Amino acid sequence: MLRVDLNCDMGESFGLYDQGNDEEMMQYITSANIACGFHAGDPHVMRKTVELAKKYEVGIGVHPGFPDLLGFGRRDLACTPSEVKDYVTYQMGALREFAKAYDVKLQHCKPHGALFMKAMGDKQIARAILEAIHDVQSDMIVFSLNNSVFMEESIRMGIPVAKEAYADREHTEDGSIVLTRKGSVITDYAQMADRVVRMIKEMKVQTHDGKDASIEAETICIHGDTPGAPQLAKAIVEALSNNDIKIVPVKHIIQS
Amino acid sequence: MLRVDLNCDMGESFGLYDQGNDEEMMQYITSANIACGFHAGDPHVMRKTVELAKKYEVGIGVHPGFPDLLGFGRRDLACTPSEVKDYVTYQMGALREFAKAYDVKLQHCKPHGALFMKAMGDKQIARAILEAIHDVQSDMIVFSLNNSVFMEESIRMGIPVAKEAYADREHTEDGSIVLTRKGSVITDYAQMADRVVRMIKEMKVQTHDGKDASIEAETICIHGDTPGAPQLAKAIVEALSNNDIKIVPVKHIIQS
Amino acid sequence: MLRVDLNCDMGESFGLYDQGNDEEMMQYITSANIACGFHAGDPHVMRKTVELAKKYEVGIGVHPGFPDLLGFGRRDLACTPSEVKDYVTYQMGALREFAKAYDVKLQHCKPHGALFMKAMGDKQIARAILEAIHDVQSDMIVFSLNNSVFMEESIRMGIPVAKEAYADREHTEDGSIVLTRKGSVITDYAQMADRVVRMIKEMKVQTHDGKDASIEAETICIHGDTPGAPQLAKAIVEALSNNDIKIVPVKHIIQS
Amino acid sequence: MLRVDLNCDMGESFGLYDQGNDEEMMQYITSANIACGFHAGDPHVMRKTVELAKKYEVGIGVHPGFPDLLGFGRRDLACTPSEVKDYVTYQMGALREFAKAYDVKLQHCKPHGALFMKAMGDKQIARAILEAIHDVQSDMIVFSLNNSVFMEESIRMGIPVAKEAYADREHTEDGSIVLTRKGSVITDYAQMADRVVRMIKEMKVQTHDGKDASIEAETICIHGDTPGAPQLAKAIVEALSNNDIKIVPVKHIIQS
Repeated sequence: MLRVDLNCDMGESFGLYDQGNDEEMMQYITSANIACGFHAGDPHVMRKTVELAKKYEVGIGVHPGFPDLLGFGRRDLACTPSEVKDYVTYQMGALREFAKAYDVKLQHCKPHGALFMKAMGDKQIARAILEAIHDVQSDMIVFSLNNSVFMEESIRMGIPVAKEAYADREHTEDGSIVLTRKGSVITDYAQMADRVVRMIKEMKVQTHDGKDASIEAETICIHGDTPGAPQLAKAIVEALSNNDIKIVPVKHIIQS
Repeated sequence: MLRVDLNCDMGESFGLYDQGNDEEMMQYITSANIACGFHAGDPHVMRKTVELAKKYEVGIGVHPGFPDLLGFGRRDLACTPSEVKDYVTYQMGALREFAKAYDVKLQHCKPHGALFMKAMGDKQIARAILEAIHDVQSDMIVFSLNNSVFMEESIRMGIPVAKEAYADREHTEDGSIVLTRKGSVITDYAQMADRVVRMIKEMKVQTHDGKDASIEAETICIHGDTPGAPQLAKAIVEALSNNDIKIVPVKHIIQS
Repeated sequence: MLRVDLNCDMGESFGLYDQGNDEEMMQYITSANIACGFHAGDPHVMRKTVELAKKYEVGIGVHPGFPDLLGFGRRDLACTPSEVKDYVTYQMGALREFAKAYDVKLQHCKPHGALFMKAMGDKQIARAILEAIHDVQSDMIVFSLNNSVFMEESIRMGIPVAKEAYADREHTEDGSIVLTRKGSVITDYAQMADRVVRMIKEMKVQTHDGKDASIEAETICIHGDTPGAPQLAKAIVEALSNNDIKIVPVKHIIQS
Repeated sequence: MLRVDLNCDMGESFGLYDQGNDEEMMQYITSANIACGFHAGDPHVMRKTVELAKKYEVGIGVHPGFPDLLGFGRRDLACTPSEVKDYVTYQMGALREFAKAYDVKLQHCKPHGALFMKAMGDKQIARAILEAIHDVQSDMIVFSLNNSVFMEESIRMGIPVAKEAYADREHTEDGSIVLTRKGSVITDYAQMADRVVRMIKEMKVQTHDGKDASIEAETICIHGDTPGAPQLAKAIVEALSNNDIKIVPVKHIIQS
């Protein structure tokens, strides 16, 4: 039977600022990427999000970003690899402590925004993130775009990697995505859900410029910060179910 | 044989800003209180400080503070107990991850500056800190002034507590200390070293206003950010040795 | 003819985080208290808010807070008076530059949250804020609760002061307000609008504990960050109009 | 008579962290580039530095940087031009307010670190900075490397520009400098002072790779954060005096 994991960025509120639809999204997804206070999130939000993930039996993942709250981690920052490694260690530890307080293990790591995109193409940055993980939990699963440097390096270092595709972003022919700084506006849920189904059943996706490309999707990302996100998630869950594709946490898909 | 632990605040540099005499102090002390990025310190400094502590076989402790880099954590911030609990969990986890990467266990927790002083007298804040610790590592030793609410609550919650006195601060009759925002100027090392010896041998200290008070000192704090700190540490180490008082990490003194 | 100014906190978004209903509120109010990046707001938000205020011909005011983004400036921070003075100067200058770029003059200053409440009762903090203002623009109007230390000191220093009351907060008998950290839920707009009218016409308000107290209101604050705020503002504007009370910027009410 | 301005980055301390040798350097220089809290500096440090500059009759300049305290503004951050414009406006205003409180006018603007280097080569970023200046004070002098995009755009926009060379950095053939993240170690003061004299008298400098290049130097930068900086400054002042080159604030050199 075909299986897929659904992931969503979570815990991106900060202080009095609310962001995302966390509790609603938790009901649809199987893996939560939890912000750790660098690009978004704060200690209180982290605790609450870990609690929610536990309640809905959603896998907990680190979602480390650049130290840029003002830019929501969406702006590239010219850090050295060792700075990146230290930033990831720090954020991962902060989240792990909350998970520990609730007796949950960290399942995965998905870098955020500009750090994620950088890791996809920059070997040194990719390795810095992977080394931070390797030093403390070598069975942690990392999320990666298809055909990326990050995927290559994960395999080389023996860190389990899950191939990720996006429900609400356009893909390029090589498996990358077309990023926008302000997120996208979700309009046609059914069409997006069908695209997800096709990625899993046919391992194909239509690219942003109309071509047909190969893609592997072990986990599908849905962005939670657009108003229609819960409806999109619901549409995807239904479409997957209608196509006999089972939604399970990524740790059951990836052999670690 | 009499025994005592020597502790020092460490890892309080930030970015390009250097603070303290960490490597020098590591040679004299047995427990390091490592800043975690809220009042001072940053991920890179934390890694370096954990490495140093490991190299010199110094016990590693969390040194959580208020989120106030601009005030170096020395200004009281009217946080709720649950905010304090979350801040401590976050900082403790960040440090624990670096310790984990170097295969070292966290030994103790000493809150920093205004948070420390608040915890000494405010029962709810004291409990918030202790609960954060209790939720993840109940054998972690906490440092506390004599006769404080924090000590009382530690005992009540079954968290091992070490009584702390200060080499370079004045004490009050009830075992508290006289805080200054800019630190103190160290002048007479021998006199300070003698005061430390007396605290351990006679369990007495002369207070800031000239009285003689009872005090118990299982760990002695030396502040590392004053220029003469290494000389003071050296003088204390020599005076303790001359008086047959052994310097050992606090975990060997406190039954956890 | 009776006159009153309506003020609202503005520009409290930050990065990707949206807060408040700024453009809607601008249509009802006459004075905008603009956050300056310490407790909320950022350079981009400040520019946008100044532009909006200019477009709607709303008086521009500084809304300085404690440097506590995480706590939205609602937590008291034990700053020295000279720290407070410097923080106010800094924030006021940042806003003044945006105003200058749009050829607008700063009209008033209303401290935010915990800094506001502190200034009402602490003479040294009150003076620190007033000195920052006095050093650069002595005709700037400050907003103050009735019967406060801040009002007293403004008068003593010759800084024009406008008496402020609240549309959406409960008052105490001495003219102070009952603060909550999460804001209030607005329910009965008409009742609140009537309370505002009574404050201006009869100079009376019913206190939170049911007494009847004297109050003077030259400016009425409406908080913009609750969902119903624009409706409340609209209700107030209508009630004032129905009672022949004219709404004008505070600079036309206060002789500076 | 030949004339030159000497400038130095100033006010780069933060909270309890001391950086630089500000008061010593003030005695040698004629223009101070004052940090504004984004990459370094804080409101209290800004006030103190403006006071010092006034005391020593040194021209006051804005030294805006990227919002990256952790990286001291030395890491490129992928901001949009409008973000950069807003950051410069904000920082310039904050400093201007302190200057205003001491009745001093802002003389110049020199962007810091990574923002400076970016402005030299990126037309949009260069224009963003210049527009921020143009909107509020079009006679403000900007500092720029020789042959840079920033210089070109300043001229195009009618903003007075001073050509800058470095006492303690290596130059490239096109007038740029060789940046290092940790600063340089100053060793031979006399040799550096001679190089400065030659830049002014012969308009020549030996490049980092041993060539001889043309250079114009209306202002010479000395970095204040290296231990030997005051001695270097002293050596330069003496060498200039021995060669009949007068040291004056840049506003007397550049026609604005």
